[in-house]
Amino acid sequence: MKFVVLTIFPEMINPFLDNGMIRLAAERGIIDARAMNIRDFADGKHRVTDDKPYGGGCGMVMKPEPLSRAIHAASEVAPTARRILMTPQGRPFDQAMAQKFAASDGLIFICGRYEGVDERICMDQVDDEVSIGDYVMTGGELAAMVVIDAVTRLLPGVLGGEESAEKDSFSGGLLEHAHYTRPYNFGGKCVPDVLMSGNHAEIEKWRRETSLIRTFLKRPDLLEQRCFSSEEKKVLTEWCKRIEDLVG
Amino acid sequence: MKFVVLTIFPEMINPFLDNGMIRLAAERGIIDARAMNIRDFADGKHRVTDDKPYGGGCGMVMKPEPLSRAIHAASEVAPTARRILMTPQGRPFDQAMAQKFAASDGLIFICGRYEGVDERICMDQVDDEVSIGDYVMTGGELAAMVVIDAVTRLLPGVLGGEESAEKDSFSGGLLEHAHYTRPYNFGGKCVPDVLMSGNHAEIEKWRRETSLIRTFLKRPDLLEQRCFSSEEKKVLTEWCKRIEDLVG
Repeated sequence: MKFVVLTIFPEMINPFLDNGMIRLAAERGIIDARAMNIRDFADGKHRVTDDKPYGGGCGMVMKPEPLSRAIHAASEVAPTARRILMTPQGRPFDQAMAQKFAASDGLIFICGRYEGVDERICMDQVDDEVSIGDYVMTGGELAAMVVIDAVTRLLPGVLGGEESAEKDSFSGGLLEHAHYTRPYNFGGKCVPDVLMSGNHAEIEKWRRETSLIRTFLKRPDLLEQRCFSSEEKKVLTEWCKRIEDLVG
Repeated sequence: MKFVVLTIFPEMINPFLDNGMIRLAAERGIIDARAMNIRDFADGKHRVTDDKPYGGGCGMVMKPEPLSRAIHAASEVAPTARRILMTPQGRPFDQAMAQKFAASDGLIFICGRYEGVDERICMDQVDDEVSIGDYVMTGGELAAMVVIDAVTRLLPGVLGGEESAEKDSFSGGLLEHAHYTRPYNFGGKCVPDVLMSGNHAEIEKWRRETSLIRTFLKRPDLLEQRCFSSEEKKVLTEWCKRIEDLVG
């Protein structure tokens, strides 16, 4: 799996590639990730990568030529990789898209800066426009790192147990259950009894229940399209009953 | 505006703070941003910050004591700052939340790693749980940087013209218009005539129109709750007419 990040700030990307899980995945030969400086493909002594917008207005626009050359060079490193422009205008990135990307050969990220990228690059040299959320950032660098992180951890052999990635929030359409670790008593707050019981069937049941309840309380929108299992229906019905009893 | 990021990977945060707009905002005295290492608040020779989960299962959980001490230390640096846990379970971050945060005194970010953070920290020592999107990452570091970036660029005096932040995608509920810069002819693709006309009223009208049309095509969900201006209604009605004419 090859990742190439095209940016004018490679120094923001490299420390991310050199730490934690990403470094581990690279050491194990599972990924090959690098940043390439768009400035290296710009002309002149000052290697300018931006220019004023046609039609006037504030802000600068990324020039098409250096970007185009950088995309070409990245495609030589990763010939079968999809070329992705990180932009708030793109399709919203989610766990399903992460899984799709994890099954691909590689990704080339084009990180815009300033007001944006010349439209002719967007139209002709980009396979996909992707957004990590409905907010505006100064550039695409953080967004590219977010996608690399979310995709890499899904690749076989990256996380310790295969189980870890599967049990995470969203992987089953629900938020993850609560976690507790030592000490048993922390400032007067103790770990729930069931987790101390050693009864694994009960522990699993409690985890599935808290997972469902947390999703209901924190992100009800995630439940709108859900096909509930009979156990889940039972939990929700019991909840209704308890609420009805409370209300009288 | 104070930002404190609590993390076990400060080396991932610091290059972000030392580059681009964030560095500029710090140099201008508009923000004071720093990373603090949670490991510095852990006990023993090995300064362990994680432990096995009660109830069994894969993955490790962040221990409550070091985190609690780190949060305490961060609150001394930024006493009035909100304490925010970055987690996929949190409230979805968007441009409106960025604006709210930009009006606050400061933010302390708690970056989870591994399977998650001991629930007692989440319950008692956190003001807000925030998620940057419906996908799972290895840790909260990238998410914290995303929020810092989106908030900082809204602070007065950070971007060149005040106009720049206001015109961005989402700021008016729409995606931004297309951008073009030199050369006029790039690989046979030319800049739209209207942008070369020098007629500013026409250019503004074209920009508002393309902004509306791009939103309609790329992110129709953003238009569902919109109160359309009479100009926007006219544009959309004209579109309908053209489509009806096409269909016959």
